[in-house]
Amino acid sequence: MTDRAHWRPLSRTNIQAAHTVIQPHIHTTPVLTCRTLNRLASTPQSPGSLLGTPFEGRTPAKPKINLFFKCENFQRIGAFKARGAFHAVLRLCNHAQALALAAATLKIPARIVMPRISTPSKIAGTEAHGANVIFSGSTSQEREEVVKHVISETGAILVPPYEHPDIILGQGTVGLEFEQQVKQMVRQDPGLSVRSDPARKDGALDAVITPLGGGGLNSGVATWFSSGDGQPSNKTLVFGAEPSYEGADDCCRSLATGTRITSVSSLTIADGLRTPVGAIPWSVISNPEKVRGVYAVTEEQIKAAMRLVLERMKVVIEPSAAVGLAVVLFNEDFRALAEKEAGEQGWDMGVVFSGGNTSIEAMGQLFSC
Amino acid sequence: MTDRAHWRPLSRTNIQAAHTVIQPHIHTTPVLTCRTLNRLASTPQSPGSLLGTPFEGRTPAKPKINLFFKCENFQRIGAFKARGAFHAVLRLCNHAQALALAAATLKIPARIVMPRISTPSKIAGTEAHGANVIFSGSTSQEREEVVKHVISETGAILVPPYEHPDIILGQGTVGLEFEQQVKQMVRQDPGLSVRSDPARKDGALDAVITPLGGGGLNSGVATWFSSGDGQPSNKTLVFGAEPSYEGADDCCRSLATGTRITSVSSLTIADGLRTPVGAIPWSVISNPEKVRGVYAVTEEQIKAAMRLVLERMKVVIEPSAAVGLAVVLFNEDFRALAEKEAGEQGWDMGVVFSGGNTSIEAMGQLFSC
Repeated sequence: MTDRAHWRPLSRTNIQAAHTVIQPHIHTTPVLTCRTLNRLASTPQSPGSLLGTPFEGRTPAKPKINLFFKCENFQRIGAFKARGAFHAVLRLCNHAQALALAAATLKIPARIVMPRISTPSKIAGTEAHGANVIFSGSTSQEREEVVKHVISETGAILVPPYEHPDIILGQGTVGLEFEQQVKQMVRQDPGLSVRSDPARKDGALDAVITPLGGGGLNSGVATWFSSGDGQPSNKTLVFGAEPSYEGADDCCRSLATGTRITSVSSLTIADGLRTPVGAIPWSVISNPEKVRGVYAVTEEQIKAAMRLVLERMKVVIEPSAAVGLAVVLFNEDFRALAEKEAGEQGWDMGVVFSGGNTSIEAMGQLFSC
Repeated sequence: MTDRAHWRPLSRTNIQAAHTVIQPHIHTTPVLTCRTLNRLASTPQSPGSLLGTPFEGRTPAKPKINLFFKCENFQRIGAFKARGAFHAVLRLCNHAQALALAAATLKIPARIVMPRISTPSKIAGTEAHGANVIFSGSTSQEREEVVKHVISETGAILVPPYEHPDIILGQGTVGLEFEQQVKQMVRQDPGLSVRSDPARKDGALDAVITPLGGGGLNSGVATWFSSGDGQPSNKTLVFGAEPSYEGADDCCRSLATGTRITSVSSLTIADGLRTPVGAIPWSVISNPEKVRGVYAVTEEQIKAAMRLVLERMKVVIEPSAAVGLAVVLFNEDFRALAEKEAGEQGWDMGVVFSGGNTSIEAMGQLFSC
């Protein structure tokens, strides 16, 4: 997957093509709504809850936000990553005919390099699918060392988690489905949209937020919504969400200086977002025409959002998947922007739940019950 | 709600009418599928896992079961009960015009009698909706004592949880939606049905199982599927599922003797199913043309089913909601019947997840992590 001559441009058309290719292999995950969370998102935080945060002393923002949740936690293997992986491997089979013929359809022997501290449910899930798991240290440098060694020993072909257009195009299909599904939902029940102008009650999303680790999902979704094929009046703003713990907000900090940070060593509970943003995703995310902003939240805010989703929506998400909702509910910079840009009408806003790989024990431990 | 002259017959037509009345107030909850659970349901249990159970020494059954899950845990207030309650109160308003006029639309002052040992999340949820909660002992006798007292003190009108046709007709709308949704899903993707004959790939369910406590949900769903308005070739068998702990399997035992048991005192983890089956539900459930059978499962089996739903389907259900799936996966009497009646083709089978009212703490405690 390293021959750049075969790389496809990141475009809306190529996301559509990716969707056609992967559709037989993935779930069209449902889009859910939740009145309680709409109410919470549209209620100002109490000034007291801002004490001790960077927002202390500010007048809490009063945005009006109407939420739609794209449940990729219900995706096969419990996360959106099935999309990019299927797309990359199916495209790989097209290019490497000899390999595809030699290996029974998609039953290519797989070696997966994972940090030794990965959550046990992710390791068990990977092994259950027949892959040979090889452990590395927890930083991306340590992981790349091990990958290099495996490639030189076995001649394996690297399918990276986010640093490849085929992966990003696959993840971008989340945006395609999300857009189509919300339009259909609002067509069937116009009351689901917050927009008051009947001519604009077309189900177009005003904004979408996704978690941001390596950046494959965020840059894929931003590619879908920004490629210029949509109606200009219905521009959907794309946002990214990161944990702030131990510097995992590398993308926020990279955007502040304009230089991509390439090393992160954080043990945030959002374990899927511990990696620094990759170079190809960064080429999308650093473009303000494509990604309007990236915001960070604390571990406590991630847990509070996760609890709301579990207890109110009855949906199991992993901590990484709660980061987008945490920004919507708790980050005053984001909320002030939403209040200003959404105005009195408010926003129809999409939140991507990226994955659900956790266990009852892990949840119990996280909330130390 | 005690004037029997106004009681409507339990029929498919009246369930349709109930659905029209309540639809603006309830969610059309999604129907989900899960390949992992289809595989587990269609794999014989190991003989070892039957040791120490009533099925010890039997050859484990080999049914072929293809599952569809109706997610009433995503319903408003987190359970199907919103259906019957909305139907009963809306009908009440029709009959008691003076009351309906006096009370702002649906904002009738409500007094809710609940057992003192109800789960804290249910008590908090009830109070959050503005109701005045009055506590009683845990048996249905103790509850009725308190209800009588409240009525004599306040002149309140009793809206019972299951002993009224309006409640049962409301719960029956779960059957209506489930039937329509699975037909639509199979029309869009015939591969979702296990049936091999293309002429029969119409999405009709071969069987449906629901949890059974007071029996409102089960008798409502059975009313929908048995009222004879459907295609006879597509008869959907309805089953009930109970916990066996401390005699909570009162309906199984009632069916065995033909006499309804009216008192149960069980602290099963399936707290929604601690009540004995009511007289009106019993008139439906005791009719073998309407309910094909009721099966019981142990606390451990309920927990195992709940864990699979949480960790594999990423869906939060309360223990009561897991009882139907537990029967499908673990009750050898049910599995043997399914093997015999479904044959080689297998069954397209619906499972109702009745509710999701639990908390992270309660889950942690249940699995003592």
